Formats: sequence, structure tokens, C-alpha cells
Amino acid sequence: MIDPDIVAAHLDRLAKPKGSLGRLEDLAVRLGSIQGTLAPQTKPRRLLVFAGDHGVVADGVGIWPQAVTAAMIGVIASGRASCSALAAAFDASVVLVDVGSVMSAAPAGDVYRDRRVGRGTASLASAPAMTSDAFWLAWMAGQAAVAEARADGMRILAVGEIGIGNTTAAAALIALGCEVDSDALVGSGAGATDETLQRKRDVVRGAVARARDMIEDDPVAAMASVAGFEIVAMAGAIAAAADADLPVILDGVVSGAAAIVAQAVDPAALETAIAAHVSAEPAHAVALQRLGLVPFLDWRLRLGEGTGALLILPMLDAAAALLVDVAKLDEVIAGAGGA
Amino acid sequence: MIDPDIVAAHLDRLAKPKGSLGRLEDLAVRLGSIQGTLAPQTKPRRLLVFAGDHGVVADGVGIWPQAVTAAMIGVIASGRASCSALAAAFDASVVLVDVGSVMSAAPAGDVYRDRRVGRGTASLASAPAMTSDAFWLAWMAGQAAVAEARADGMRILAVGEIGIGNTTAAAALIALGCEVDSDALVGSGAGATDETLQRKRDVVRGAVARARDMIEDDPVAAMASVAGFEIVAMAGAIAAAADADLPVILDGVVSGAAAIVAQAVDPAALETAIAAHVSAEPAHAVALQRLGLVPFLDWRLRLGEGTGALLILPMLDAAAALLVDVAKLDEVIAGAGGA
Repeated sequence: MIDPDIVAAHLDRLAKPKGSLGRLEDLAVRLGSIQGTLAPQTKPRRLLVFAGDHGVVADGVGIWPQAVTAAMIGVIASGRASCSALAAAFDASVVLVDVGSVMSAAPAGDVYRDRRVGRGTASLASAPAMTSDAFWLAWMAGQAAVAEARADGMRILAVGEIGIGNTTAAAALIALGCEVDSDALVGSGAGATDETLQRKRDVVRGAVARARDMIEDDPVAAMASVAGFEIVAMAGAIAAAADADLPVILDGVVSGAAAIVAQAVDPAALETAIAAHVSAEPAHAVALQRLGLVPFLDWRLRLGEGTGALLILPMLDAAAALLVDVAKLDEVIAGAGGA
Repeated sequence: MIDPDIVAAHLDRLAKPKGSLGRLEDLAVRLGSIQGTLAPQTKPRRLLVFAGDHGVVADGVGIWPQAVTAAMIGVIASGRASCSALAAAFDASVVLVDVGSVMSAAPAGDVYRDRRVGRGTASLASAPAMTSDAFWLAWMAGQAAVAEARADGMRILAVGEIGIGNTTAAAALIALGCEVDSDALVGSGAGATDETLQRKRDVVRGAVARARDMIEDDPVAAMASVAGFEIVAMAGAIAAAADADLPVILDGVVSGAAAIVAQAVDPAALETAIAAHVSAEPAHAVALQRLGLVPFLDWRLRLGEGTGALLILPMLDAAAALLVDVAKLDEVIAGAGGA
């Protein structure tokens, strides 16, 4: 890491009005300061998709059955998901880290990694979703995925997730971490009816109340009680990326919940995090504001799989090109015969 | 062109929650419907930068001298401008069409095209900026640039401009076209002091008042009286792109003014236009709203050169990849053994 002011001063020497590229300059400053250079590298890069199942799905918090998690794991593993298409378009590799699906057979191919610390969480509607031990195992699975990415020479990471039911856990974690009323944070996720949305609100309210009773004595147990394996693994990955001075692009509301968890565990965990977008889920904006992360897109994205995070990759390419390839103002003045 | 609903229906068959990619789906629908296919092509692609000088600069409407236009033409021609860096990052060619600079010697290289219809406009502070004849010559220069791009096989165009003083002309054109008070539309452009900003407001107010007196009898003469050569050429390019079913990405406030001009001349001129962003210049949002174009980025961009338009190119790659490469939901269900 270097002082962001060093990168900003470099931008101010380029042949353009100061600050005239607005948020693209914010990205350039962030990228250069994290990588500690005025010539940042944006390739190779990788999307880490964390997968897990949620016991709370049995309580009717959404319209999709749990089997959809396994089906989408299969689609991602075979390279035909939305995230696969976007990653290919932007020259990113995809690694799918399964930390907790209930799936029986692992799909073929080199995208999928079976790192399961459980087969779905318990339902947070009636019990702690996971133990503290499981929390740390999931956290370490996330860290291991970053270690592998570093070993493979990755310069930028993007994170995303798949897991039916995980916007329920995300809303609960954000309500818990931001100390706000949960009802306003619960959105439709991947799909809802009036009935499932009301049940989701009730379930989240009850789970958050129980977690709040635990948080002072044992904050990890409190977070674990409403979390998901893939959310905790993502939190571990975000913290590991910060530790390695590796930019990590966050996706939607579940990434926001993971960032809340990461920061609760490690106050320095978000030092290399970039918020790609603010999603259609109401809890997301609340989480980003609390974390002090300003999103770059407001595109009503709510797919997950890291799709929103991927959209920032070419913007980082543009930011790097700006730093490296644009003429300096003093060169232009000298070339024009002085001024 | 095909019915946007055909493209939207295709997106709804993909293995993802309907509409869950928000504005990326809007881009996919726009791209597919304009190109008339469910497998749109986004390469090759070209940025057209139109250049021109403005007599009004002599009236002290900004902080940059007119010589900066020539200097920046040189930087773009040599491939070292901000737009060059972004175009290279996104695999776009750059053609710089000079329709009205006061520059004496053409720069070397194959980026620059001398298509000048004048050497700077007259100052709109005291006289019509150009004649109607000059307006049409500039318009046709823009159309010719699109014809060349088509001959070169381009699938997507982006448009931008360079021309010290042109946010003054843009504010006047937008005030005239949108029938709003000009004072609130005048912004700092590439740079302003309190004094130059006040002078810019006064100049625009006077010029718009004179143009309004002409608009009923001779709308082209009225627009010409406050326009710039590069703005009119861009308007011609936008209309030519529509005529050729070629997507054309607009940049900032000067593009917005060009779009206003294009639509005034040809009501179908914006059928293939995509608004990349809403800029820091206050007139831009007014123009976009009037034109019914919803921007994709709100990044406080105000550089020009087409830089903001270029940022949407990779998003179109993503939109095309989505249409072509993602599995259908029914395939996934069949693969999972039915449902």
C-alpha cells in the first residue's frame, strides 16, 4: 500500500482537467494505493464464488427450492452461468468454492472445489445456523481460496456467492452488525411472494433478537447463529485479500453482509475492498454506508454469483490505463512550444 | 432492428431470476434490438472524436486558451490522450475528425482527419456562430465519418469531442432545445472562476434570447447561431448511426447537445443512441431527461473526448455475452432430472 495522495498527485499531472474523470479517478487512486504503484496490474484476475445451503429455506422464506443451489453449482461448474459469461468477457478465471451445499455428487471440471465444512446450515429460524467452530472452518476456507489465488499470481479478486436462502442470513447479519431494525432490511432476494416476504421478515426479526442477546458475550457465536457458510468464507477471503494487499471487489447484499462480518473479526479487513454496486436489496445500502464504501454502479442488480463485482473489472483496466498511458500536461505544454 | 420484447423474452429464459441483472439487461435489450439479433456483436468498434474551436472563447467564458484545442488534438492524434488510453484498454479504434479547429498544421498519424468546414466559429456572444450552410457541411462531415466506420465493419460507435468553449455552446443549445432558462444550465466545463462562470451565464443568456427569436422561422439557423462545428458533426453522426442500425454511445453534455440537435433535424435520430453517463455539467441531466435517455453511470465525469462513452463498451460486451453464453433455465431443469 502507498498513500492515496501519491496516486492522486500523479493523476493531477496528466493532460486533462484535474478531477475530470470523477469516480474513474477514485478507482485509479484506490487501485494504485492498494497495489503500492503508479503502474497497477489488473490481470490475471479471478472470481471466487462461495456456495452454501441454508436450513432456513425449509421455513418458507423464498420461492426457490434448495435444489436450485445444486443446479446452479452445476451450471457454474460447467461454465454456463451468468458469472461464467461475464468472467469470460472480462478475462477472469472462476473458482467455485463449495463450503456448505447439501449436494450429493461433486460436478466435473476444474472450476468446482469441495471445501465443505457442513451440509447446509441449521435453520436460523429456530436454532443457531452454525457453531463457532464451523464459523472458523468456513472463514479459513475463504482464506485458503485467497492463498491459492495468490499462488496463481492473481492481481485482483472479485467475490460472489450462490446459496438459496442467503439473503435471509445477509439481512440478519446486517441488522445485527448495523444495529438497525431488521424489517426494513428484508427484500425479495432471488424471488418472493407477499407471503414468503412476510415470513422472511418474521424469521429475521426473531433470529436477530436471539443473536443480539449473545453478541456482547460472544460476538462470533452471535454472527454464526445467523450466518451462512458461504458468507463466512467470503468474509475470510475479504480479510485475507486485505492482508495480502490484493484488491477485492465486493458484489451485492451478501457480500455486504460478509464485509460486516469481516470487519467485526478484523478491523483492517476492508482495506483493499471495493464496492462494485448497490443492489436492489434494501439491506445493501445500509451495509455500505456503515462500512464507508461508496458503490460505483446503481443498476438494480440482484443476481449474485459475483456478477456485479465482475462489472468493475474493465473499469479497473481503464483506471490502470489512465495511470500508465496518458501524457503528462507538462510534456504537452513543452511539445506545443511552451506556455 | 427487432422488437425489444423479443430480446427481453430471451433473457427471461436464461438460468437466473428474471430481471435480476437490472440495467445490464436493459443494455442487452437495447443492443440486441438495435442490431436485430439475439447474438449481437460488439467488435470491431470505434470512437469518433469531433474537434472544433469556438469564437466565444475570446469573450472570456472559461480559463483555458483556445490553443489547448490544438494541443489536445495533437495528444489524441499521437495516441496519448485519456481517450486513447481507454480506447486501447477496451479494444476500440479512435478517429479524430477535425471539423473546425483553428490549428495551422495537421498532426501526423492515421488518427487525425482534416474535414474542416471552418476555422473556429464566430463568437455566439455577438453574432451567429455559423451559417446554415456551415451547419449542413458539419452535419455531413459527421455522416461521412459514420459511413467510413461502416465501411470498416464497425459494430458499435462511441462519440465524443474536443473544443475549448464548447460547453458554452452546449448549454445554449440545450436551453434552446429544452425551452428552459439557461442560467441553471451553465456549469464550469473544463474549468471556471466565479468571474468566467458569470460571464458564461451572461453570454449564454443573450445568445439563447437571439436564437429564440429565430427558431420558429428557421430552426436550423437558430441552432447554428449557438452551435459548434464539432457539435453539429456529432449530431450528423448520431443520425447516420440511427439510419444504419448502428448503436452509438453518447458521452457528456456536449453529446447531449448534439443529440438535441440531431432529434430536431430528424425525429428518428436517436433510435440507436445509448446515454453512457450523466455528467457533472448541469445541462446534461436536463437534456437526457428531455430525450428520454436514462444514463448508466453517474460518475461526475467532465473530461470529454468520448471518455465516458468508452466506459460503456465493456458493459456491452457483458450484455452480449449474457445473451449468447448463458444456459437456458429449461436446460438446467432437464439436466437436474426434471422439476
